Amino acid sequence: MAANNNSSSNNEIESTDQVGIRIEAATNTDDLTDAFGSVGTSSSTSASTSTAYKQSHFGSGAIGQLASNGYSSSGYHKNVAKMVTERHAAEYNMRHKNRGMAIIFNHEHFDVPTLKSRAGTNVDCENLSRVLKQLDFDVSVYKDYRYQEIMSTIKYAASQDHTHNDCILVAILSHGEMGYIYAKDTQYKLDNIWSHFTANHCPTLAGKPKLFFIQACQGDRLDTGVTMQRGRTETDGDSSMSYKIPIHADFLIAYSTIPGFYSWRNTTRGSWFMQSLCAELAANGKRMDILTLLTFVCQRVAVDFESCTPDTPEMHQQKQIPCITTMLTRILLFSDKEKSPAGRN
Amino acid sequence: MAANNNSSSNNEIESTDQVGIRIEAATNTDDLTDAFGSVGTSSSTSASTSTAYKQSHFGSGAIGQLASNGYSSSGYHKNVAKMVTERHAAEYNMRHKNRGMAIIFNHEHFDVPTLKSRAGTNVDCENLSRVLKQLDFDVSVYKDYRYQEIMSTIKYAASQDHTHNDCILVAILSHGEMGYIYAKDTQYKLDNIWSHFTANHCPTLAGKPKLFFIQACQGDRLDTGVTMQRGRTETDGDSSMSYKIPIHADFLIAYSTIPGFYSWRNTTRGSWFMQSLCAELAANGKRMDILTLLTFVCQRVAVDFESCTPDTPEMHQQKQIPCITTMLTRILLFSDKEKSPAGRN
Repeated sequence: MAANNNSSSNNEIESTDQVGIRIEAATNTDDLTDAFGSVGTSSSTSASTSTAYKQSHFGSGAIGQLASNGYSSSGYHKNVAKMVTERHAAEYNMRHKNRGMAIIFNHEHFDVPTLKSRAGTNVDCENLSRVLKQLDFDVSVYKDYRYQEIMSTIKYAASQDHTHNDCILVAILSHGEMGYIYAKDTQYKLDNIWSHFTANHCPTLAGKPKLFFIQACQGDRLDTGVTMQRGRTETDGDSSMSYKIPIHADFLIAYSTIPGFYSWRNTTRGSWFMQSLCAELAANGKRMDILTLLTFVCQRVAVDFESCTPDTPEMHQQKQIPCITTMLTRILLFSDKEKSPAGRN
Repeated sequence: MAANNNSSSNNEIESTDQVGIRIEAATNTDDLTDAFGSVGTSSSTSASTSTAYKQSHFGSGAIGQLASNGYSSSGYHKNVAKMVTERHAAEYNMRHKNRGMAIIFNHEHFDVPTLKSRAGTNVDCENLSRVLKQLDFDVSVYKDYRYQEIMSTIKYAASQDHTHNDCILVAILSHGEMGYIYAKDTQYKLDNIWSHFTANHCPTLAGKPKLFFIQACQGDRLDTGVTMQRGRTETDGDSSMSYKIPIHADFLIAYSTIPGFYSWRNTTRGSWFMQSLCAELAANGKRMDILTLLTFVCQRVAVDFESCTPDTPEMHQQKQIPCITTMLTRILLFSDKEKSPAGRN
């Protein structure tokens, strides 16, 4: 179950011929990157070119913003965080004193004139808040916050000492577009939220799960779906003193819909995604690992929901599939806080 | 484990006040979308505006391309596919006659002058081909294909009858940038590959897992990592006659690195991601579900690898984390083809 230790195999002397950074060192190459090259440009020219490229292309899609957090990764070479889990442990350590903070930004009304109030979001918020408390999270709800208020809240949370917490969870219920989500007063990129929790910026959460749940549109495309019709039926049911991790490891981002597409909300029962997420967390939150649980959230949304807007035929009978992106490195199970079992049920 | 049936709750008459599509119908609203609105613009104006927005923002990031596949979803309302799995089955049906096709595009040499040959990729390709055969895939390897050859191969594969196959798998080993991957002669967007396999375009794969493994850079950023240093140690280890699914459901895209970042390759042992993926598939391919298995692939890459390029200090001691995006709706386990067990081991 645990991965083998391959790190010693990288301890030989290697050089790189990464084009644009060190063109001339083309001998004795071992560790290379699969980037495009640009022979003939100097290192500095290549760097500025690629920066311009990034600025014009980053920031789209649910995950694209991870790359544009505005922080330079240089200068963090010496970062050290406390080891909270054995190097090759199969599961995250979920036996700290506290489960951790759960921050919910719930958006119903907006100052932006083009944005309608989001009827049903309070149902989502109450459901989510209840199930997260059942999973032992310390839940805080922030209603209709402006962008600067959201940023202050996030910065404050990231600056806290999470030493005795298992993880952190942030949920955002709002309007959205491709690559953007709306605060009460303006749109912002999601990377503005999660970039504060990378292992270099928030060392007491290093090696711990950082979970983001986003209920918002990512565009205006519709998924018409296909009907599955019955034919014949078949169903089946090495630890060391220290180790280094990427600063972007241990993130999970669960988006209600795929990039470019609508996300549906029922004005009385709440959004399809939050209804499904809360139902799964309530039923299986302490029994199933998070990826299995989110797989069944996807199943609920994909199979059990379909829009019903017969007066607007182009919006009628549409489908939705959530989009789960994981950089988790261990199994995540919200085991019971009181009993603190050593393993999975 | 299976989701409840919520579809009946959507059968009431509902209308939408989605701004820009039907502004005036603001009463009796139930199913809405969390999109931005644009009060005061007519439906057609709003539509053309949002199209322009999409064109300028789509196509970035590993998953962003799902939304820009160039196909209109309209006109597929009547699509019907054969039900291969019970509506609320926990696991995918992996007991068809064949596991399915595995297509590997292996790129070593390029016509593009700026692209260096990818030493080590044949090691990756041989390893991957071997483990996929062990998992009963029908493996085909295509070496140094041009873009049109890749497209012909993909279109041919998508046009085949997959009725007796469990799933499909496509792996690409190449150079890449943010949102693009390289064929021998040119760059292309990844959506050009997977858009051919959506449930409307490839009905015999509808409801079946569609798996994409990409070894390529997604940019030129480096992850310096943080060191985890030991403190005290704690480790823990309802079925109906038919149902409709989103055409984008059941995809899984495993990218070697996160958007914006380098992906590392050892010129003698192969890329970190493919080394780790092949090791996990070989060790646990028939024992663990795919998301658990890929979690341990992430662990191997994150914990066991670090670049060693002391002659190029800015590239030295860098880390990498893969990025797994899943729209799977059931547990996926490559159980043994011969024995065809009914459940998980």
